[in-house]
Amino acid sequence: MSEVSARRRGGGGAARRAERTAISVETARFIERNIPNFEVLDEEAPSTFTQHARNPQRSVEIGGRNLVLAPVYGPPFVRDADGGRRYATIEDFRNFVKLGYMSKWLHHSGGTVCEPTDVPVNKRHLDMLHAHMTLSDKPFMGSVTEPSRAQDSVDMCGILFGEEFVQANTVMTSLININSPLTFDGIMMGALEVFARNNQAAIISPFIVGGAMAPVTVAGTLTQVLAEVLAGVAYSQLVRKGAPVIFGAFVTSIDMNSGAPTFGTPEASLITYGAGQLARRMGLPYRSAGAFCGSKLPDAQAAYESANSLNMGLLAGVNFMLHACGWLEGGLVASYEKFVMDADQLGVLHGLARGVDLSENGQGMDALREVGPGGHYLGCAHTQANFKSAFWRTDLLDYKPFETWEEEGARDTQALAAIRVRRQLETYRQPDLDPGINEALADYVARRKASMPDAFI
Amino acid sequence: MSEVSARRRGGGGAARRAERTAISVETARFIERNIPNFEVLDEEAPSTFTQHARNPQRSVEIGGRNLVLAPVYGPPFVRDADGGRRYATIEDFRNFVKLGYMSKWLHHSGGTVCEPTDVPVNKRHLDMLHAHMTLSDKPFMGSVTEPSRAQDSVDMCGILFGEEFVQANTVMTSLININSPLTFDGIMMGALEVFARNNQAAIISPFIVGGAMAPVTVAGTLTQVLAEVLAGVAYSQLVRKGAPVIFGAFVTSIDMNSGAPTFGTPEASLITYGAGQLARRMGLPYRSAGAFCGSKLPDAQAAYESANSLNMGLLAGVNFMLHACGWLEGGLVASYEKFVMDADQLGVLHGLARGVDLSENGQGMDALREVGPGGHYLGCAHTQANFKSAFWRTDLLDYKPFETWEEEGARDTQALAAIRVRRQLETYRQPDLDPGINEALADYVARRKASMPDAFI
Repeated sequence: MSEVSARRRGGGGAARRAERTAISVETARFIERNIPNFEVLDEEAPSTFTQHARNPQRSVEIGGRNLVLAPVYGPPFVRDADGGRRYATIEDFRNFVKLGYMSKWLHHSGGTVCEPTDVPVNKRHLDMLHAHMTLSDKPFMGSVTEPSRAQDSVDMCGILFGEEFVQANTVMTSLININSPLTFDGIMMGALEVFARNNQAAIISPFIVGGAMAPVTVAGTLTQVLAEVLAGVAYSQLVRKGAPVIFGAFVTSIDMNSGAPTFGTPEASLITYGAGQLARRMGLPYRSAGAFCGSKLPDAQAAYESANSLNMGLLAGVNFMLHACGWLEGGLVASYEKFVMDADQLGVLHGLARGVDLSENGQGMDALREVGPGGHYLGCAHTQANFKSAFWRTDLLDYKPFETWEEEGARDTQALAAIRVRRQLETYRQPDLDPGINEALADYVARRKASMPDAFI
Repeated sequence: MSEVSARRRGGGGAARRAERTAISVETARFIERNIPNFEVLDEEAPSTFTQHARNPQRSVEIGGRNLVLAPVYGPPFVRDADGGRRYATIEDFRNFVKLGYMSKWLHHSGGTVCEPTDVPVNKRHLDMLHAHMTLSDKPFMGSVTEPSRAQDSVDMCGILFGEEFVQANTVMTSLININSPLTFDGIMMGALEVFARNNQAAIISPFIVGGAMAPVTVAGTLTQVLAEVLAGVAYSQLVRKGAPVIFGAFVTSIDMNSGAPTFGTPEASLITYGAGQLARRMGLPYRSAGAFCGSKLPDAQAAYESANSLNMGLLAGVNFMLHACGWLEGGLVASYEKFVMDADQLGVLHGLARGVDLSENGQGMDALREVGPGGHYLGCAHTQANFKSAFWRTDLLDYKPFETWEEEGARDTQALAAIRVRRQLETYRQPDLDPGINEALADYVARRKASMPDAFI
């Protein structure tokens, strides 16, 4: 290949005269590298990591093609069919941890499943962590409301898992919200520093109410989300390179009439899909979506909005879905009934994600031959061999004949869910825990509580 | 290239002796065609067609990247919040046509939005067609319950559109169900013949309850669906080549405990996605999905199941979605409240399908610069310029502050929907229709009714 681009050309008399006087300028062709790039910075954060649970069978892989489901996070209120809406207590918190532990489809115990408002603010995290560690054996989240509380989370994990194990492995995934637009909170970042330093995972999560905390357009919001997340990720990697970090995006749109956040909307879906593409381009695990809704009740509005968000979350490539069940009223309320309603729907996501079995058994040609025109498949050999695992089955919804349903009280979904909540809590059994660890955890909580006066901020 | 494959090979004495006695057999190389294929059959059915409405602004393009939404089809019962569940009447039918006409998001008036059980079976179609033609100006479906009723549909369209127009254009899209597995009903096929002969569109639609009318596996069901649809499409093309035809797939799964059909399940979604791929490979418009649910009430179950199905329908590439609103209790019931609830959610599908605006305005970089860290976007110039069209807005759901909502009666979605139904029916205004056509249609209906005794089969 020639590297000289200036070349003589033939022509008339004028051209020949120009040629005689012109200075021939040699210009090198643009550079094509045949040497490796020099990477002055380290490898990016891990694209997949394991969050260990104390029960190793419940450890989760966050990233890649995986989806890990965790319950609602943060509501100061709870609601149930009997008691209505009220401030959440530590008893409620424990109940939600139990319900999460019992759910077949939920992989993660979550974090602040509700705010235990009857416990002083500066001591809540101790009771919450203690509940996750003792009432469940699924993975859980650490406290982010103060760097010292993040440290308590790390220390209690040291008791539960052993200190060396914690330093070598990730045992918490914690939620670091960004005060969008473009603002990082010192307290949250202090918590991030504690977690990153201790090799624990952080979700760097812009908190987007589109039109308020971000531009009113999808592409504008994505631009801001990307800038915010990358800044947070870079910071975490400065604290400890290779510390696990998740590309987060909490996304809602806004009702321009009232300023209320809205959920299950097409704009929120488009942002969530787009952010998923950005996260994959960055090679980072992705946190978004959830069973979001604005409704005050676990009614049809709640379910439409939640189903829109859950389906979108699966298809958008979310790897860690917080708020996957129990979210009500824009996140102000943790609903007992909605917790089990959403959790049941999470089975639908599992079924969809299985994809299509194209094996010989999947194709079922024997069944087609056996049954033939006008027959039915209920009793054929292929159905008999496969029916148990062929279809997702609800643990909650009603498929009864109309007459049976009416005789049994014409119950709606909320009524059926209330029964399931009661039954789950009645049949709950605490998972085994080494008595020494159990005692050490209780001691730690008691000692830390005694070390400081109650505070309510 | 040599065309002779038998070649001499060297070898030892035995080989040379064999060579002397062998007959050299010349074998031509397999044929590679350098001539066009001879297509003895005509081009396949159109991949896109226009269904004309009497109001040309409401005509729809069925196929390609388009999605046309039509209401529930077939329920013998209706339900509303006040009256509960009861047999449907022609008055209910007219109400649903009015609600469909008033919906911003519904493109099509549908067909049997409910069965008017107070009208003799052999005369119902006349009242139903008359309602679609006079109470709405959106496109509609023809009758398929008897070939003579299909002919009435064509004849009434002749009055409404002009006979020549009907022969040259498609003005009805009608539903030809297949009695799966692998059985075509003579009456339905007779109706198909009438419609195809008159250039009217037919949806060739296997009626699949997976595990009963099709194998219990996704791939097995798809195999059967493809065979059934292709047989029906081929038949329609034999009747009239180029008659518009739609690849249909009505898909539910089954509850293996009770035998009840189930909706919004992952298996039904996988079949619907897969059938969409087959329809696109065939180059045919695709009909599937809907606001399916098994619930008896327009409650959370109904909404979860419906939202699962609606989202899946959009993403599966459906071109014509029957049952897009109003479906309840496995299709046994047309629900007034659910009609407006679902219709509101159809706006979400419109919003999602718009995709992402990546124009300079869409990117909103001016807004990012104007607002900066820690600000908010509510008042910035970009928001002011865009907020009216930026977000989908519900006409139904509740976004009010908790206190306001409670003061106003703590209404659930069904209660809000009941109000909307009442308001819609109160404010309905009949679209204009030429008085001569109006009279001719009424005469036709009266004459045909008088021509035969009432029949209830």
